[in-house]
Amino acid sequence: MADRSRPALTELAASLPLTVPFVGPEAMTRARGRPFAARIGANESGFGPAPSVIAAMREAAPDMWMYGDPENHELKAALARHLGIGFGNVSVGEGIDGLLGLSVRLYAGEGRSVVTSLGAYPTFNFHVAGFGARLVTVPYRDDREDLGGLLDAVRRENANLVYLSNPDNPMGSWWDAKEIDRFVAAVPETTMVLLDEAYGETAPASAIPAIDVSRPNLLRFRTFSKAYGLAGLRCGYVFGEAAAIADFDKVRNHYGMTRMAQAAGLAALADQAYLGKVVKHVAAARDRIAAIARANGLTPLPSATNFVTVDCGRDGAFAKRVLDTLLEVDIFVRKPMAPGLDRCIRITAGPDADIDLLEAALPAALAHCR
Amino acid sequence: MADRSRPALTELAASLPLTVPFVGPEAMTRARGRPFAARIGANESGFGPAPSVIAAMREAAPDMWMYGDPENHELKAALARHLGIGFGNVSVGEGIDGLLGLSVRLYAGEGRSVVTSLGAYPTFNFHVAGFGARLVTVPYRDDREDLGGLLDAVRRENANLVYLSNPDNPMGSWWDAKEIDRFVAAVPETTMVLLDEAYGETAPASAIPAIDVSRPNLLRFRTFSKAYGLAGLRCGYVFGEAAAIADFDKVRNHYGMTRMAQAAGLAALADQAYLGKVVKHVAAARDRIAAIARANGLTPLPSATNFVTVDCGRDGAFAKRVLDTLLEVDIFVRKPMAPGLDRCIRITAGPDADIDLLEAALPAALAHCR
Repeated sequence: MADRSRPALTELAASLPLTVPFVGPEAMTRARGRPFAARIGANESGFGPAPSVIAAMREAAPDMWMYGDPENHELKAALARHLGIGFGNVSVGEGIDGLLGLSVRLYAGEGRSVVTSLGAYPTFNFHVAGFGARLVTVPYRDDREDLGGLLDAVRRENANLVYLSNPDNPMGSWWDAKEIDRFVAAVPETTMVLLDEAYGETAPASAIPAIDVSRPNLLRFRTFSKAYGLAGLRCGYVFGEAAAIADFDKVRNHYGMTRMAQAAGLAALADQAYLGKVVKHVAAARDRIAAIARANGLTPLPSATNFVTVDCGRDGAFAKRVLDTLLEVDIFVRKPMAPGLDRCIRITAGPDADIDLLEAALPAALAHCR
Repeated sequence: MADRSRPALTELAASLPLTVPFVGPEAMTRARGRPFAARIGANESGFGPAPSVIAAMREAAPDMWMYGDPENHELKAALARHLGIGFGNVSVGEGIDGLLGLSVRLYAGEGRSVVTSLGAYPTFNFHVAGFGARLVTVPYRDDREDLGGLLDAVRRENANLVYLSNPDNPMGSWWDAKEIDRFVAAVPETTMVLLDEAYGETAPASAIPAIDVSRPNLLRFRTFSKAYGLAGLRCGYVFGEAAAIADFDKVRNHYGMTRMAQAAGLAALADQAYLGKVVKHVAAARDRIAAIARANGLTPLPSATNFVTVDCGRDGAFAKRVLDTLLEVDIFVRKPMAPGLDRCIRITAGPDADIDLLEAALPAALAHCR
């Protein structure tokens, strides 16, 4: 029943909860009253942006009185060259989060259905709820997104959208490119596939499908937030068939990209040597986290991302205790929440200093929890 | 008729045009093949951000590997102190553009109506169309937004939203605070008033209503894009009654604000001395533009903003010729488009070097057009 003494939200908006997708590390720090010693929970890159990118940001700072180019022309042109696709096959947005929101808005309103994995990206689910579509979830299978199960659900529900991340967050698992290709080919032409490749740079080449922008029902998402070390600038991009990409112009916040993100993204893309170094650092850190987990009687899952998901060997309550105990000694990690996945904690592959703290703290934390 | 070989956009999305709210100066530069000599068309602040803010951005650059605080806590706390309101009375977003989009999404879906002035902010209209609401426009009256006409339209249409900018863009005009207060008090309690105060810092104090966050149907919008010189960082804020402010959390992109914008906004707010200097520079530039206009037989309109709207004394076609002729000599200005308002061009109050170019070019441009 609407309150007649104030403006009424739309029926949809009124139905939405005030809860947020997930709490940020700063909010946790405020609640704790002290900073984290190791920030290895949000899959940010502790290796930082490239020195060349920091220099580009510093040089661009005095220009911030000007709006960014609403067409993101230079960055889009550079991305198109980098990906070997046409200028009209790529669009830029406020992180993959922003672009997923626009995708949901374009394809999935009330009365439509969306398929994702149970325990996959909560921000995507937030957008689906926010635009009133029905979310259909498919459990993971052997700690991977279940391609067959997703396909069955898409067909059964006549879904408008299906979300898939490869490599996957929060499990770090991945499918080979040919399996992804097979999945995409099997999805009905009327279902848009949202393929989130946020962690694509740290994956083996064999996991990343060849780029083909002729398919009208595939949108692929990448970001400068992970391996490029620019999470704080909100710069993601989507590429695909030109008509599908053009549709983003109907609904995007045209002046929404910061001039700083455009400058930094351009500089980051130009410094592939630094990216290569980070990818090596990430691989070494993954190996180290895996070794530490094993030395403590835990099971690291294989990872193609910039984090390692570690099976704590018992139930969700136990893994939660491990996580909370690490937080008590100022080590910020996160964990999957879905049944079955929740036996794990998720540790970002950060710099040695952070992993040193993890290595030092884990034995006592586990002893305490056991 | 849906194409069965590709995913169908929602009915609403399919109905939207691919046209954009307005073309940016970079796109114009690309089309022209050469840069502008004076960028005084987008109401950016050519005086730039404060040196203290540039320093803060440079210091923050290496931290961009971390996501910004999704709660924007420090910036919100500083804004609340600055405005003398509670922490829960303010929310931060990707410029006023982004916050207007969220406001439309919260209050104005399909089957709802929104009132604005004919010739007011096109990006707002873009959002209204984008969420499927019906836009009802009221002509300006004597180059000001027609408060009585807006009120009549709100009542007649039982509008869910009414948009009002004070001071106004594109005319530079304003209402006294008591007129705004009277308007807000007269609007039905069930209609949300969106009061855009993007140009509030350059307005006379008498134009800005006292802050009262007890009213559930008033949201006020301000920005770091204009007087603070940070258009390129997309940092706006909205303040109002706590419950209305909390509703933004239902739909905003929680990790959408860049860490850079948060750092710069915080530094900008702390440097009120620099803001005071800019406001003086803007006032002097307005006076100078007005004098140049008069010296050329044109009529500058009174302005409370960081631009001067100049009546070219003939019809819209003539004003368009003046604008195009200025563009030919690399001076970027814009103009109002609505009937009646379109006799004017709109010149940003920029630094002396830009106004020098205008002063030098205007006589020949007018002679050419006449």
